[in-house]
Amino acid sequence: MATLGLMEYADAPPEVKAVYDDIMATRGTDYINNFWKALAHDPATLRRTWESIKQVMAPGAVDPLTKEMVYLAVSASNQCGYCIASHTAAARKAGMTDAQFAELMAVVGMANETNRLVSGYQVEIDERFLT
Amino acid sequence: MATLGLMEYADAPPEVKAVYDDIMATRGTDYINNFWKALAHDPATLRRTWESIKQVMAPGAVDPLTKEMVYLAVSASNQCGYCIASHTAAARKAGMTDAQFAELMAVVGMANETNRLVSGYQVEIDERFLT
Amino acid sequence: MATLGLMEYADAPPEVKAVYDDIMATRGTDYINNFWKALAHDPATLRRTWESIKQVMAPGAVDPLTKEMVYLAVSASNQCGYCIASHTAAARKAGMTDAQFAELMAVVGMANETNRLVSGYQVEIDERFLT
Amino acid sequence: MATLGLMEYADAPPEVKAVYDDIMATRGTDYINNFWKALAHDPATLRRTWESIKQVMAPGAVDPLTKEMVYLAVSASNQCGYCIASHTAAARKAGMTDAQFAELMAVVGMANETNRLVSGYQVEIDERFLT
Amino acid sequence: MATLGLMEYADAPPEVKAVYDDIMATRGTDYINNFWKALAHDPATLRRTWESIKQVMAPGAVDPLTKEMVYLAVSASNQCGYCIASHTAAARKAGMTDAQFAELMAVVGMANETNRLVSGYQVEIDERFLT
Amino acid sequence: MATLGLMEYADAPPEVKAVYDDIMATRGTDYINNFWKALAHDPATLRRTWESIKQVMAPGAVDPLTKEMVYLAVSASNQCGYCIASHTAAARKAGMTDAQFAELMAVVGMANETNRLVSGYQVEIDERFLT
Repeated sequence: MATLGLMEYADAPPEVKAVYDDIMATRGTDYINNFWKALAHDPATLRRTWESIKQVMAPGAVDPLTKEMVYLAVSASNQCGYCIASHTAAARKAGMTDAQFAELMAVVGMANETNRLVSGYQVEIDERFLT
Repeated sequence: MATLGLMEYADAPPEVKAVYDDIMATRGTDYINNFWKALAHDPATLRRTWESIKQVMAPGAVDPLTKEMVYLAVSASNQCGYCIASHTAAARKAGMTDAQFAELMAVVGMANETNRLVSGYQVEIDERFLT
Repeated sequence: MATLGLMEYADAPPEVKAVYDDIMATRGTDYINNFWKALAHDPATLRRTWESIKQVMAPGAVDPLTKEMVYLAVSASNQCGYCIASHTAAARKAGMTDAQFAELMAVVGMANETNRLVSGYQVEIDERFLT
Repeated sequence: MATLGLMEYADAPPEVKAVYDDIMATRGTDYINNFWKALAHDPATLRRTWESIKQVMAPGAVDPLTKEMVYLAVSASNQCGYCIASHTAAARKAGMTDAQFAELMAVVGMANETNRLVSGYQVEIDERFLT
Repeated sequence: MATLGLMEYADAPPEVKAVYDDIMATRGTDYINNFWKALAHDPATLRRTWESIKQVMAPGAVDPLTKEMVYLAVSASNQCGYCIASHTAAARKAGMTDAQFAELMAVVGMANETNRLVSGYQVEIDERFLT
Repeated sequence: MATLGLMEYADAPPEVKAVYDDIMATRGTDYINNFWKALAHDPATLRRTWESIKQVMAPGAVDPLTKEMVYLAVSASNQCGYCIASHTAAARKAGMTDAQFAELMAVVGMANETNRLVSGYQVEIDERFLT
């Protein structure tokens, strides 16, 4: 069970309801993830985290699907079970196909392999990559 | 210094030269990264790793720029200095702009933050993400 | 199930019972966590780990509550489910309030975010931090 | 060198100068860390990150010294060289003594050890820690 | 549930059956782990990963039991639940005793502890280790 | 520079000299690594860490070379530069050949890759690995 419990909409104080409302409006859904319900016991962190996510994941120089795939890639690399589950759902909602998922995981796997080969072999950075 | 040293082209046995040649041909360059020169002391690992990278990073359901950005995202998350330097260069060569780089890092940062909030708060996975 | 099983007090050899007794006496409890029961199959590691924990977590220049909160912070950062659960309980027993928990997690989250921004942006260490 | 370079105050656009000014005023210093100068090429991330840090590190239910020590603990656990250097300086400025530093590192070390013993031994969470 | 599901032998296309057959023949078993069944939705990754594992884990300068123990050590250090479970089984099949397992975990624990003490104390590399 | 500096033998108090003497006697060397010199400012941690290392790395059910290789494998996986440098030296002193090093790193690389494939694909643990 979540450390501080999950706060349902009906039980939430106005400043939490305001964030929940903005999450649902921004995402076009009537569903609030457990993540937000767990954070809601600390309304300042709930608001700050949501505002940051909203800013960071908005369309920009990188498109929303790529952003969701990067989020999933980092979560898989960090082996965060909750995050993998929720961002797999989010990436699919943003259009990720099974083939894209599989290629994404292949890149994540290779990056984790070569990151350790590099450090284990104590490879010095190439002069040309330093500038 | 790299644990087993860096193997230059001129000193390489034929099976290493063959991989170096394929790297340069595939990437349209006459430059071999230190990473490959460090691995070259183990020709089997050199070949296997190169063949894997070549397969994984090839255009497919995910485009090459996105793949390079994911590789960089994982390397930044893992804090592998060499990998960040080399894949920043690779991503730029593949077309990554400064604005794309900045947005990518913002996503990497947020994912690392929320990955820990989720685990620290012991958030259980939503029923709907399990199926 | 734990790899080597959980060793109950009644089944334990004398050198394990001695550690269990010291754990219960030191902590003022009659409960032995699964962690110790799992380690008990290797009495040398059980004793060494317990003696280390006892030394490290004792009151000193840093108070016990802060130490428990740091332990929880590291465990959350490492995403160790068992450790988060057990050290949340330990920190609460040491006096951690819900508000302190929430602020602790906010710091853990930010540290994980900025750790990756720093590495991803390849920020060099300031001259003044080197001395 | 930082990927996008370090932005000096004199070269900064007004929205970056405003953040730099707030950092210096809040911290009572005339020095801006390389971290902020590196982020400044993305003013939105600079502002968001600074506002988050300011909120999270402010005095609250947890005192500022403890927060700095937790930040350092997480950075040491993550092995982020820059972050360790800068947050060691920050913790000392907040009053951390050598003895507190040493005890902090001892806790970080033990937490990292037992986190892996727990997972390696596949220890199941105690019933009593689940509620 | 695995993101793309688990592909059973009977439902597998020929290129997947060929890998499954090789896994079973190489390992002298009629059992296919869930890992391979999950990867099977991406036959190229399935084949590449299996061929790599087969090459890397084959007897060579390092014996198969040691290789399995190293695999388990890394998986425990990374806290990958599935990997710990499956490689504990594999290491036991290769001959790992309970005493060897316990000593292995003790080394993994100490390495994780001292890795952080080193970074937290900002220890510079000894001159003699650089050459 | 190490946070608390490096304590030379000539400047050390008796309890530190005693540990230094035991390190040199146990290892058959007249050299003290920077790691120990950095920890020496906290004599309790110095002694505890050394006693733990001495116990854990002693010959037992697992031979000393394998233990050093596991230590190196974990350090490479964690990307701890100091630890990789010092344990590469230690493993070589214990007899590790270049071929063994290369195979070790290949295993470390694969384990890091498949650890993330497993988590990214959300593979559930096989029934048979749970008992």
